[in-house]
Amino acid sequence: MISARVDRLRDTVPLVQCLTNTVVTQFTANVLLSAGASPAMVDTPEEAADFARVASGVLVNLGTPTAAGYTAMREAVRGAGEAGTPWVLDPVACGGAAARTSFAGDIVRHRPAAVRGNPSEIRALAGLVTGETGPSVGGRGVDSTDEVESASVAAAAVSAATGAVVAVSGPRDLIVSTRPDGTTRTTRLTSGDPLMQRVVGTGCSLGALTAAYLGAELSGATGSTGFTGSAGPDLHTAVVAAHAHAGAAGTAAAREASAPGSFAVAWLDRLYSLSAADIAGSVSLDE
Amino acid sequence: MISARVDRLRDTVPLVQCLTNTVVTQFTANVLLSAGASPAMVDTPEEAADFARVASGVLVNLGTPTAAGYTAMREAVRGAGEAGTPWVLDPVACGGAAARTSFAGDIVRHRPAAVRGNPSEIRALAGLVTGETGPSVGGRGVDSTDEVESASVAAAAVSAATGAVVAVSGPRDLIVSTRPDGTTRTTRLTSGDPLMQRVVGTGCSLGALTAAYLGAELSGATGSTGFTGSAGPDLHTAVVAAHAHAGAAGTAAAREASAPGSFAVAWLDRLYSLSAADIAGSVSLDE
Amino acid sequence: MISARVDRLRDTVPLVQCLTNTVVTQFTANVLLSAGASPAMVDTPEEAADFARVASGVLVNLGTPTAAGYTAMREAVRGAGEAGTPWVLDPVACGGAAARTSFAGDIVRHRPAAVRGNPSEIRALAGLVTGETGPSVGGRGVDSTDEVESASVAAAAVSAATGAVVAVSGPRDLIVSTRPDGTTRTTRLTSGDPLMQRVVGTGCSLGALTAAYLGAELSGATGSTGFTGSAGPDLHTAVVAAHAHAGAAGTAAAREASAPGSFAVAWLDRLYSLSAADIAGSVSLDE
Repeated sequence: MISARVDRLRDTVPLVQCLTNTVVTQFTANVLLSAGASPAMVDTPEEAADFARVASGVLVNLGTPTAAGYTAMREAVRGAGEAGTPWVLDPVACGGAAARTSFAGDIVRHRPAAVRGNPSEIRALAGLVTGETGPSVGGRGVDSTDEVESASVAAAAVSAATGAVVAVSGPRDLIVSTRPDGTTRTTRLTSGDPLMQRVVGTGCSLGALTAAYLGAELSGATGSTGFTGSAGPDLHTAVVAAHAHAGAAGTAAAREASAPGSFAVAWLDRLYSLSAADIAGSVSLDE
Repeated sequence: MISARVDRLRDTVPLVQCLTNTVVTQFTANVLLSAGASPAMVDTPEEAADFARVASGVLVNLGTPTAAGYTAMREAVRGAGEAGTPWVLDPVACGGAAARTSFAGDIVRHRPAAVRGNPSEIRALAGLVTGETGPSVGGRGVDSTDEVESASVAAAAVSAATGAVVAVSGPRDLIVSTRPDGTTRTTRLTSGDPLMQRVVGTGCSLGALTAAYLGAELSGATGSTGFTGSAGPDLHTAVVAAHAHAGAAGTAAAREASAPGSFAVAWLDRLYSLSAADIAGSVSLDE
Repeated sequence: MISARVDRLRDTVPLVQCLTNTVVTQFTANVLLSAGASPAMVDTPEEAADFARVASGVLVNLGTPTAAGYTAMREAVRGAGEAGTPWVLDPVACGGAAARTSFAGDIVRHRPAAVRGNPSEIRALAGLVTGETGPSVGGRGVDSTDEVESASVAAAAVSAATGAVVAVSGPRDLIVSTRPDGTTRTTRLTSGDPLMQRVVGTGCSLGALTAAYLGAELSGATGSTGFTGSAGPDLHTAVVAAHAHAGAAGTAAAREASAPGSFAVAWLDRLYSLSAADIAGSVSLDE
């Protein structure tokens, strides 16, 4: 099922609008281009809503926010909501600075298709949507000091409250969604390499890749180009496929590079060159 | 003639002021440094005009514009105009969002030395300067869906209306200018590699490189360091040389890299290491 | 002594807050990650002060400043001052545009732990803090046209007036501080490679690395994890160690790469992989 999604991404070349932080804009665009999507960094208040109506998917990443950036994010989410464009929230440093935590707690109520973050961010977000605070979290910037599993209850709470697929990134990714009957669906995915933590933007660009996979999943969902014989789009699996693609490329890159500079180059190369079968065969799934 | 321009660029090390989008600032600076120019990303309203008076060339790229960015662009163009500094317009996504299309239509009237864009952008710009709209254009973001040749009439119209050399980028670049007698001069240049489309900023940085070549062409144009025996600066050929340099490096990079990450690295390497003769010998010209 | 600092950096993983220019944010973050520190690009007026209180070190780099950026820098310096967080000033293009020169002259009075710049910037800064102007300086953008040694008197003047360790970057770095008795301590460090001038951000990221080394030097300075048997933190040596780390990686990178694209990749690799002994053994010190 992952394999089909990778092929679909490359066939449909989804247009992904990124409202993201200034540190990772270039790398995020290159990740999307390498993986098979098309980036558009349209992030001004004037243009964000209109573009979100025509984009395949939208990423809203809260790193390095400005006042104008917040306005643009609200506009993009509004446009996405009106047009049914799937959007992804990456709540960078949620639980840290008050202003962005407050913004995250508000914007997450506008029905993101997915949320992707590290454990401390997802736990902080869970506190915002449920009104409960979990055990105190030792966050320092964007480097999570929690383990992924410690955020599983929080991830399920965020999913239940928002309807989003929630991905907690780490050595073993946790992807959680809520079924129509209210039960929780969970997938654990082991892939990647520790060197990914030494390259800025591997996490942020995974948020963009998630938006790309969601866009590909929903493109033609109502028409004849949808999955033949399928029960329709499956956003949970699309999010898993995004993480598999990024993780498999990380595993492959680590075979040819042992330091961060060349690893980043190799990661982009493998996002591009790994076949759908390579990707599906490289990751370890537990669901 | 291309070969002499490459040598001149590297001898004069033109200082290129870039007002460009946040996605490509780092890459653009590295492209200029690798090719032999000196970048300066001076793009605030307070500093843009003064710096444009002392720069060798100025790039105005409309990607990711902000209100302050628009003001800075107007200031830079004003300073460039007062000092005779050549400036290049890259009308990113012109024909898409209304605000930037309107801005492009206005700023292009302030005598850019060159305009560089993809086919849909140049066609949209032609509609703005002539008041006529061509056949409808299927633009999606900055990825042109038109062919270069379809924009040849539009390029000639923009050149005739503005006096600029107009470059339409694609697998075969089209470079068009208007002679003093009103006739159109056209050069077609085949070079590069499809992997350039998988690296963000190859087009945007070509705009900056064009400003560098124009700056080198005009430096010393009135003094003893001009071209010996030449009829004076030839902006058309300078723009062709910029495209030849970028394209030849792309062709060479594709010999050593087959995926986007390593291709981008190799492109920077070859912008630096290809000799003037290598560059002139690598491209195919039709004029 | 350098060797112990490199180990200490990698052991303490200092959190470095960067308020820096848009051209080099990604590269600066990657340099910090490769060297062994943790970057956080928290640069909004709302968040800068609070974050500076918890960061290990702060970089204030004046490239591409905006009005909001200036406010954020003042806030970060205020928070750093209140919490005793060491901060580094990189006075990019000081002596050029009036607004940033004026800002540099003001902010430098708020007790930076270190100042890092090129010769023309340090000379301009000396004029601001002493009220005297030196010989006229042929600055063009951020490319210094002076020699490092010509700025030695200026560096000593800035150090005496501000208490900062002052580093003048070049083929042979000059690091100057003022002893408690008012005499000047000077270290000259030869390392690196001319290709570093062809990669944007090698200087700017050295400012961030300096903040990282200062943060590591001061961490645990009052507790049991300080240097055993040492007389306490030595900021001068910490600044020397930062330059040694960057320079040794440059020397090593030049052994495997001969053009700017691959050199930048190799530099990041060697920042990561060189051992403390490799670094200490690679540079030539004169003090």
